[in-house]
Amino acid sequence: MKPSIPKGTRDFSPAEMAKRNYIFDAIRNVYRKYGYHQIETPAMENLTTLTGKYGDEGDQLLFRILNSRIHESKKKDELLNEFKVALERNVNSEILTERALRYDLTVPFARYVVMHQHEITFPFKRYQMQPVWRADRPQKGRYREFYQCDADVIGSDSLLNEVELVQMILEVFGKLQVPVLIKLNNRKILSGIAEVIGEADRLIDITVAIDKLDKVGKAKVLEDLREKGVSENALNMIDPLFEFSGKSLDEKISFLTQMLANSSTGMKGIEEIKEVFSYLPDDNIELDITLARGLNYYTGAIIEVKARDVQIGSITGGGRYDDLTGIFGLPGVSGVGISFGIDRIYDVMEESGLFADAGLSHSGTKVMFVNFGKEESRYCLSLLKEIRNAGINSELYPDAAKMKKQMAYADNNKIPFVVLAGSEEINSGMLTVKNMMTGEQSKVSAAKLAEFVSH
Amino acid sequence: MKPSIPKGTRDFSPAEMAKRNYIFDAIRNVYRKYGYHQIETPAMENLTTLTGKYGDEGDQLLFRILNSRIHESKKKDELLNEFKVALERNVNSEILTERALRYDLTVPFARYVVMHQHEITFPFKRYQMQPVWRADRPQKGRYREFYQCDADVIGSDSLLNEVELVQMILEVFGKLQVPVLIKLNNRKILSGIAEVIGEADRLIDITVAIDKLDKVGKAKVLEDLREKGVSENALNMIDPLFEFSGKSLDEKISFLTQMLANSSTGMKGIEEIKEVFSYLPDDNIELDITLARGLNYYTGAIIEVKARDVQIGSITGGGRYDDLTGIFGLPGVSGVGISFGIDRIYDVMEESGLFADAGLSHSGTKVMFVNFGKEESRYCLSLLKEIRNAGINSELYPDAAKMKKQMAYADNNKIPFVVLAGSEEINSGMLTVKNMMTGEQSKVSAAKLAEFVSH
Repeated sequence: MKPSIPKGTRDFSPAEMAKRNYIFDAIRNVYRKYGYHQIETPAMENLTTLTGKYGDEGDQLLFRILNSRIHESKKKDELLNEFKVALERNVNSEILTERALRYDLTVPFARYVVMHQHEITFPFKRYQMQPVWRADRPQKGRYREFYQCDADVIGSDSLLNEVELVQMILEVFGKLQVPVLIKLNNRKILSGIAEVIGEADRLIDITVAIDKLDKVGKAKVLEDLREKGVSENALNMIDPLFEFSGKSLDEKISFLTQMLANSSTGMKGIEEIKEVFSYLPDDNIELDITLARGLNYYTGAIIEVKARDVQIGSITGGGRYDDLTGIFGLPGVSGVGISFGIDRIYDVMEESGLFADAGLSHSGTKVMFVNFGKEESRYCLSLLKEIRNAGINSELYPDAAKMKKQMAYADNNKIPFVVLAGSEEINSGMLTVKNMMTGEQSKVSAAKLAEFVSH
Repeated sequence: MKPSIPKGTRDFSPAEMAKRNYIFDAIRNVYRKYGYHQIETPAMENLTTLTGKYGDEGDQLLFRILNSRIHESKKKDELLNEFKVALERNVNSEILTERALRYDLTVPFARYVVMHQHEITFPFKRYQMQPVWRADRPQKGRYREFYQCDADVIGSDSLLNEVELVQMILEVFGKLQVPVLIKLNNRKILSGIAEVIGEADRLIDITVAIDKLDKVGKAKVLEDLREKGVSENALNMIDPLFEFSGKSLDEKISFLTQMLANSSTGMKGIEEIKEVFSYLPDDNIELDITLARGLNYYTGAIIEVKARDVQIGSITGGGRYDDLTGIFGLPGVSGVGISFGIDRIYDVMEESGLFADAGLSHSGTKVMFVNFGKEESRYCLSLLKEIRNAGINSELYPDAAKMKKQMAYADNNKIPFVVLAGSEEINSGMLTVKNMMTGEQSKVSAAKLAEFVSH
């Protein structure tokens, strides 16, 4: 009888929602300020839209919806056979399940663009803030339902998009007061490196290995690369790249320019990085040649954000992909985007005490009127109307309960002001207002109440 | 290859989102202003939480999640047997499916309250705005995924809650400029009527039949009641109730007071209605004795809102229920709440041209800078920074495309101002600003741009 919720999912209390909304609002305001438009897509997508887009592992992690009313199906024998096959291997049986919950916002966005291509004016700058679902093994910081907050521009090759996305990241974390380091890289530089060391066909192995430098250290990365069959000569050539951190942008660029002189792809990557950095003179942005994000669909810029004060992995990421919508039959549409990791940002802010600094009260209610009974309530309701009209979130305790209970309610909900309007106050027109932080009581005329609680 | 979305679900474009957000924001602001706190619950609930709460029909309409990795199960024979049973009747097989998508926000809320009862300070005023899913046959205006926007107070019997909820409804529709009629009733009055006509055990049949008066007319209601076995004498007694519309509140109350004099439940209902109306002197609220909302869990107030100018059924509803959390083991918690029907409100506003009146632009972007090339872009980016700091949503077209293409982009996205900053403008410091509504061009100094576009 004791109710529970599915493993890996969460309820959010008012206190948690106030904090989450603080982050959502900061992101949304920046997205809007930079001209991005919101879309929403359904929680469910057709399985054909989702499968094959996230690799075999991703396909296993889709939450599939059981088809409704299978007992009304006319093909019960077929269903039974399909089910037997499903028991052997995790297949998609169309008569068993045709839909699944979205796994990310990127594939549904690509599907959206293709379906609505004739209504869209390109370049299309869209943002989307919705939950996604993954049947991952739950663990600390990893959930089966979580929000993604994505912004992407598609249909424009201009590097100004990359520049703006980085500015947006700076602006969001500036607003949230979270100190960050933004790491940039370019897939073309990684391709150039693989090319000049004679291992072009091992590009993915190399980027995946290098990407782990932070976590496992240089020795392990080299070991991994050796195992993958990368030659000693190639390993010697990339050795200086492991010593990049701490070097200036100019030093890095000049080394890469020498190293990649014979790779036109590599040189293109260097040009792009130089161009982007020319717009972003900020101490909080660095070129990190080891950044690959393990995502093979990036073709240009790669972006990753780390919190400076809390060890927690990437809190925002993104990059450019040259062919997002090709899988759905619309080739040649280039895009670039970012995604804020709301749960990790939340954890960073909590750990750094930043929510407290922002003065978030979980109720958002500024004023509570004590309920002394029917007649007094009527008086309070008219006052409430006035101060609500002045934009002040406020309430009357609904029952004429004991004073102690009413004050405990205000206290637990962190309501900063309590107004006492008993018969004496009503007759004199002077309300008693208690500041719940300081305990101080003041006499305030009804006409001045809104002003008093606003300061 | 042509992508599609599941039947009964929808994509929302930027233009639609702007309108939907306008409604969501109006509701959210009122909820907050009245001291309601937001919570969120997971999209998936355990099946045990959901089944048996919505009747047999509701159980059939749950979207069930297929358990992951059934091919890794060690109980394949059992699974196969369960599946055979599921093929015969739509049962819940725990090894096939343990979770389903939420069907409404009320049951998850009840589950939330029971699970978190020791953290909650009662009375608990919560609001929740999230999608729900029903495997209903899709038809015009009925979707398989739609948002609910609920506010409930639980743990307080005070009628002030009912009063405030009605005030909140008035305030939301006032803000949205939608003319409405709010109908109130009280389940205790309906019980009283069934009692005094000697048909107390047919209360539900009677309320369900009477509730259809609007749709099917009096003759059909009487026929239904006769079929259910209600006596001719009883039908004669309730006959005057069908003539209530058009009568004043006092006339209705005085008739009911006579009719229900011998029913203490009925008299209690009348007292409650009188009390609630005493706080709500508004022409847009009426007592409608035929209102039952077909929901058997209401025990006191019943609330329903109709749009005055558009024929569309109820656009908001609610009421009081005496035992929301009993099903999860926490009895005796009374609640009262309302739920705004966002999709119908949207349709009403669209049909009445109210979105246009509100001046909604689907992009939300106020200013676009034309892109004349690299050097000019650099100049524009610094201007953009300034006006964004002034809170103005703005953007630079990312590519130095043909003027015609850039202007079409501004036009299609309904961006009201376009700034032209070519070399001449940069040298003189006087920008050319085009008002896209009037076509008028003005010369504006860079320092005055924010001010110019704000008026």
